[in-house]
Amino acid sequence: MTKVPDIQFFTESGSVEAVNGRIGAGTEPRLAHVMQRLVEHLHAFIKDVGLTQEEWEAAIGFLTRTGQMCDGNRQEFILLSDVLGVSMLVDAINNRRPVGATENTVLGPFHVDGAPEYPMGANITKDGGTETCLFEGRVTDLDGNPLEGVRIDVWSDNEDGFYDVQQPGQQPEHNNRGVFVTGPDGHYRFRGIKPVSYPIPADGPVGQLLERLRRHPWRPAHMHFIVSCDGFETVVTHTFVAGDDYLTSDAVFGVKDTLIAPFELVEGGETKWRSTFDFVLNRRVKG
Amino acid sequence: MTKVPDIQFFTESGSVEAVNGRIGAGTEPRLAHVMQRLVEHLHAFIKDVGLTQEEWEAAIGFLTRTGQMCDGNRQEFILLSDVLGVSMLVDAINNRRPVGATENTVLGPFHVDGAPEYPMGANITKDGGTETCLFEGRVTDLDGNPLEGVRIDVWSDNEDGFYDVQQPGQQPEHNNRGVFVTGPDGHYRFRGIKPVSYPIPADGPVGQLLERLRRHPWRPAHMHFIVSCDGFETVVTHTFVAGDDYLTSDAVFGVKDTLIAPFELVEGGETKWRSTFDFVLNRRVKG
Repeated sequence: MTKVPDIQFFTESGSVEAVNGRIGAGTEPRLAHVMQRLVEHLHAFIKDVGLTQEEWEAAIGFLTRTGQMCDGNRQEFILLSDVLGVSMLVDAINNRRPVGATENTVLGPFHVDGAPEYPMGANITKDGGTETCLFEGRVTDLDGNPLEGVRIDVWSDNEDGFYDVQQPGQQPEHNNRGVFVTGPDGHYRFRGIKPVSYPIPADGPVGQLLERLRRHPWRPAHMHFIVSCDGFETVVTHTFVAGDDYLTSDAVFGVKDTLIAPFELVEGGETKWRSTFDFVLNRRVKG
Repeated sequence: MTKVPDIQFFTESGSVEAVNGRIGAGTEPRLAHVMQRLVEHLHAFIKDVGLTQEEWEAAIGFLTRTGQMCDGNRQEFILLSDVLGVSMLVDAINNRRPVGATENTVLGPFHVDGAPEYPMGANITKDGGTETCLFEGRVTDLDGNPLEGVRIDVWSDNEDGFYDVQQPGQQPEHNNRGVFVTGPDGHYRFRGIKPVSYPIPADGPVGQLLERLRRHPWRPAHMHFIVSCDGFETVVTHTFVAGDDYLTSDAVFGVKDTLIAPFELVEGGETKWRSTFDFVLNRRVKG
């Protein structure tokens, strides 16, 4: 055996240094930093659990199947990120706001650009249903001043638990979607249906993982909102239906207590339900 | 906003507890343990670098393309594991041996079951080449006793840097592959070619990552060995060609200094080169 002195070959204890020492001069500094930390945490995880060869093979197979499940309509890696709390964590880190400002939650895969803009009070539900609901409230800044010209982009599932894009041809186009713009009073008001809870797609590797972890795939009922206004941070969020069975066990960890909205039965109203929720926007820091 | 008291929703600081608290009763204990630690380390990584939304999207895209690159002939996730030092780390953790016993390195993707068994001294190279080489040595236990009945399964690339399975139809079947079994003296001896260095497949996402990290995709020249004997731990390893340009920068971190073998020019011999390497096996712990 020929000895090569003064060279750091890969060893179990020096594994991180061996890999990170290989990053070349001229690598973009942020990429180098992120990759170095990734290798540190990844190797620490493997050492921590003493990952076996069989477990490594299972992980390779799982990641491969997850990638192969992805196509134009299905993003299984985002689903994996969601159920591991990664999507919510990245959202939290990148959207820290003062107390009182409306909080973000996950965007989800069902947003569509270019939904029709309606006048206040319009009905976004085009496939009927009995659980009609009036959504209304006010958009203000942190001082309570009403905000004019706020764009409110909303979408939800239908009473069967499906978004229109999940059932092309079966639901009317832009069913349960719409855009509204506030006037000087900062009020918004539209009609839709009371959303229902639904399972995330569970027929792939992520669904199998949830099953092995004895976790259910359900999301509590919610209405999606993107609330945006010049000069303010955009809020990407949901309002959750108070009392939903899955509020405390959302498969993707999207629920925050400040986002749980009342849904009240209305006696003799135009809709069966009414949900009132006010949005508070945080002024964007000039930069 | 309706308050739900006494419930732990997802927060940035409590993200790990929120996710791990969801693992259900009845989950297989080892799976629960591995997943809990995975979530801990994964969230710590994300918080550590303050992963941006754009970086998260880039990561989702990278993992998706990596999975979609995989097919029956290409395993891009194993390649990713290799270049991040994960494959070597898992091998190291699972094959700790006393000093003096021959060390493992990565198996690699080119092993084939059922290579022909030859008598000692046979030539495994079927496509010619001028850099002929005699490989020989001894297999012993840690006390230096020769081991009989040891199965030595060997394979290498050809002089163009390709394994036979990479060029079906272009190379003779089982080119540069063979199995030898030791007699009472523990000696092995076969003829092949002096292996050459070659790049790992670099036309996919992993190759692009290496490029952005200013890393080359080359592996130093090596002969593969699987050395197995009843009652002893199987050694899966390579011998590396001393003096190779890539010994200190193997793209997959496979080199250990104890695995670097001499390749000596032979004056007037049957082969141009000779490489001598002894294997020392570690007795398997009964259990």
